[in-house]
Order: sequence, then C-alpha cells, then structure tokens
Amino acid sequence: MKFIYLLDLCAVAVCAITATLEARRRELDWFGVIVIAVIAGIGGGTLRDILLGRLPVYWIHDPIYVVVGATAATFTFFLGRHLRLPKNFFLIPDAIGLALFTVIGTSVAMKLGTPWLIAALMGVITGVFGGVIRDILCNEIPLIFRTDIYATASLAGALLLIALDSYSVNHNIAIVLSMVCIILIRLVAIRWHIHLPRLRADR
Amino acid sequence: MKFIYLLDLCAVAVCAITATLEARRRELDWFGVIVIAVIAGIGGGTLRDILLGRLPVYWIHDPIYVVVGATAATFTFFLGRHLRLPKNFFLIPDAIGLALFTVIGTSVAMKLGTPWLIAALMGVITGVFGGVIRDILCNEIPLIFRTDIYATASLAGALLLIALDSYSVNHNIAIVLSMVCIILIRLVAIRWHIHLPRLRADR
Amino acid sequence: MKFIYLLDLCAVAVCAITATLEARRRELDWFGVIVIAVIAGIGGGTLRDILLGRLPVYWIHDPIYVVVGATAATFTFFLGRHLRLPKNFFLIPDAIGLALFTVIGTSVAMKLGTPWLIAALMGVITGVFGGVIRDILCNEIPLIFRTDIYATASLAGALLLIALDSYSVNHNIAIVLSMVCIILIRLVAIRWHIHLPRLRADR
Repeated sequence: MKFIYLLDLCAVAVCAITATLEARRRELDWFGVIVIAVIAGIGGGTLRDILLGRLPVYWIHDPIYVVVGATAATFTFFLGRHLRLPKNFFLIPDAIGLALFTVIGTSVAMKLGTPWLIAALMGVITGVFGGVIRDILCNEIPLIFRTDIYATASLAGALLLIALDSYSVNHNIAIVLSMVCIILIRLVAIRWHIHLPRLRADR
Repeated sequence: MKFIYLLDLCAVAVCAITATLEARRRELDWFGVIVIAVIAGIGGGTLRDILLGRLPVYWIHDPIYVVVGATAATFTFFLGRHLRLPKNFFLIPDAIGLALFTVIGTSVAMKLGTPWLIAALMGVITGVFGGVIRDILCNEIPLIFRTDIYATASLAGALLLIALDSYSVNHNIAIVLSMVCIILIRLVAIRWHIHLPRLRADR
Repeated sequence: MKFIYLLDLCAVAVCAITATLEARRRELDWFGVIVIAVIAGIGGGTLRDILLGRLPVYWIHDPIYVVVGATAATFTFFLGRHLRLPKNFFLIPDAIGLALFTVIGTSVAMKLGTPWLIAALMGVITGVFGGVIRDILCNEIPLIFRTDIYATASLAGALLLIALDSYSVNHNIAIVLSMVCIILIRLVAIRWHIHLPRLRADR
C-alpha cells in the first residue's frame, strides 16, 4: 500500500514534469502550464476512479497529489527556462510515468475484482489518459493515437501484471517486472521509430 | 431487458464501425483507430451512467461491450482498406446507431425515475456523445454542432418514446416506433440537406 | 440555501449567455449554440459533483437548470442577431459568472468537509470548467490557459471565502465579499491587460 502510494506520487510528479515540458512550447502562461500539468498528472487516475465508481476521486481527501503536481510543474517551468534540454529528453521520464500509472491503475482495478480485460483497460486508461487530456487541452490530436507503441506498451505491461498475479507471484515483484516491460517496449519503440522509418523500402 | 441488451451491443458495434470509417481518414494508426472507435461506441452510455450515478459504469463488469467495439473496429479497419465504400456510406448505419443509443439512454433514465426532460436529455447524450468525443479526439468541432437535424432527431425520438410510454404503449413497440422516427428524420434531413443547400435562392 | 440556489440559476444563465455570444462567431447553427451554452452553464458544477461523488449530478432531479440555460441561450442567440454588441461586452457578465460559480463550488465542497485546498480547487473548477469545455467544443485552446488572471481571480476569491469562513464571518456576507474580490481582480486584470502589453519595455 505504502509502496503504491509513493509510486503514485512519483508518477504524478513525472507526468506533471513532462506535461510542463510539452506545454511550454505553446503560447501558455505560467498558470495555464501548471493547470495542464496537474491535470495531466492526476487525470488518468481520476477517470479510472470515476469509471470504477470510487468516489470521491482519490485526490479529494488527499491534497498532496495536487501539491506534488503543481510543485513539480512550477520547478520545471522555471528551471526549464534556464536549462536547454535535448529535444527528446522528456521521452524517458514519460516512459517511466506511463509504466508507473499503468501498474497502479491495473492494481486498483484488480483489487476491486473487475474482469481481467477491464483491469488491463483501467491500467491503460490510468497510464495514457493524462496525456490524452493534456493534448486535447493543447488543441492537438492526442499523441497516443498517432504512435502505436505507446498505449500498446501500457497494455502489454498491464496484461503481464495480471498474468504474474494469477500465478501468485509476489505483487511488488510483479509490479517491478511489469514496469520494466513497459519501459523497455517503449524505449525500444522509440529507437525503432527513429531508425526504421515506415516508408523505407529496406524495412 | 434481453432485447435492450442486444440492441446495446448492436449500437456499440455500429458506432465503432462508423467511427472507424471516420477516423481512417486521419493520420491515425490501427491502435488509435481502435481506441477512438471503442470510445465512440461506449462513450455516450458511459457519460450517461456517470451523470446518473450508475457506477461503476455499465461495461466495467461486462467486458463484452469493449470486445464487441474493438472487434467491429478491427474488422472494419482491415476490410475497409480493400473495400472502396461510397462517400456517404456511413450515414445510414450512423442513423441506426443514433436511434439505438437514444432509446436505450432514455429507457435507462426513465427506469431511474428522472423527470421526463432529463430522461430525454439522457437519451440525446447517450446518442450523440460518442460522436462528440470521437470528433474532439480527432481535433474537430463536433459534427453535431454543425448539422442541426442530428441531435434534433435524437431529441424527437426520445420525446416520442416518453410520450408513448406515458400512454402505456408496450415498451418494445414504443422503442421500435421511436427508432423509426429518429432514422426517418435523420434520413430525410440528409436528403434535404443534399437537395436544398442553405444559400440557394430558390429555397 | 435558497440564496445559493438562486445564485446558481443566475450563474447558469450568465454562463449560457456568454457562451452564446462566443459560439455565435463560429459556423454553428442554433442547436449547436444552445447545446454548447447549456454545457458551459452546467459543465463546471457537473464536473465538481462527479469528482466529489455527489451523484446523480445536481441537475438530474432539477431540470430547471437546463431550462434556464437553454432559455437564456435562445434569447441571446435571437436578440444578439439584431443587436450589435461591443466587442468586449461579454467580459463583465463573464466575470460575474466566474464569481458566482466559484463561491458556489467552494461552498459545496466546504460543506462536504474536504481539505481547504481541495475546496478552493472545486471552486475554481466550478468557475472555469464550463468555459474550458466550451472552448474545447469550439476547437480552441481554452481561454483560461492563455490569460493568467482568469483562474487566478477565481482562486483568490475561493481562498478569501475559506479564510472568512474560518473566522466565522456570516456565510452570505463572506460570499458577497468573495464575489466582489473576484470581479474586481478580473476587471482590473482586463483593464491592465489592455494598458500594459507584456512586451513593452517600460513595463
């Protein structure tokens, strides 16, 4: 429980940071960036809780999530102005955030006894919905609908977690393995995407 | 109950199919298309359930909805690549899906004892919200806000269903009549739209 | 209670009116404008109720909100066609609507015993989310993410209301003071925005 709680806070921070890096490129002010970052950080878990009927949603009685998200975004916003980050810098924290949220969302749904397919779906929703709403607010077609391996990585990790759990593997070990699986798939996909353009004849 | 359940599955499939046909025109990959199709299929009912407090939402404990939506979308995606469909092909299944969802949404709200205006509204939301969210995800102004007879047809059908019900007409007959009403209005509106452009002087 | 109820209806009307004035500029028909106006009017409170788990949402058993929103929008739509309004006319009713919704949302959350930070956040969500969803439906980056003093004014008013309440100030007086605070900040911000462009060297 404690372990999941800490992971969750980390994932919120990571998601807020990547959203800040993303949102900075628009003509948004500090406040707009913070709001989008916090929504990106807690949006996935919020939708999961609403769909599962776990109301009020998880951050209502625990404002630390909002505080962590806003703080991470503020630091990133002001540090980011002085720091020149490489163009693809945010891809790695983004993969970690995706992995964290996916395993948390899947765990929460499994504990409620949903069918395994729905538990996996809740993992994917928790993992990707923050980014989807971030892109909608920035007036873009959400990134995940254009890069196939993103949500697919999340789905693979969620299914792995469910499979490991059905074989009674220790839950914390299963979580770590699933996260490693998601991050690996994602990073391989990014590299593959770079080195193997879709339309090349030698594919 | 059984009747409504089957109708609901059909409507999810129909909605997923039309969303796939729509989404194929964007630069979306297979996965993105599937996700948007499933969301279009279950989005309306999901919002209805959230607003009415019927949580967890209807597909959490019955993954068949997600399976039907994803299967319909996948078939359409791959068949659609080999099949050249006429440009307006998706208008008729779309009208059927609109009718199906509207009567289901209205029925559900009526059973919960909401005021008739709200029951009609829940029918319209169930009918059109899947398409609205599909268009938002595709980064467009939702279609229904630009074609007046779409949601209006849904509203007319929902009100007819409520009226028939208040006169104690058999519920299944009332459902069929309301659906016919919606489909007719929609198809007449489409034809009218084609043959009577708004700015023509001879209108 | 009665006081809050009337304020709420006023705020729905005001929000629907400003959304109508905004939406008229797009290629939207009468029906689309009405729908967007009603959503703008009740969207903030709806999201607040969902997040807080107050389901079914507040307008399900009280259709007057929908009726007021739709009526206000219809009047504005048809009157607005004959009336030429000054370009920034909607800024003042918009500030009033923001103030009304913020104090209502904060009050509702405080009554449920949420932490003060979350109560303030619920005030801001109730205040600004209607406008956010209006802008998303119109396919724009939401206005509040581009004009910093909008949500900030809402936040300041919400915090003032919470502070006054903790000092046991009469709730109705606290509401009025908070609203005045929000409207003043907003109007000052608008004027300031006009007279002090961001990039001027003499700032």
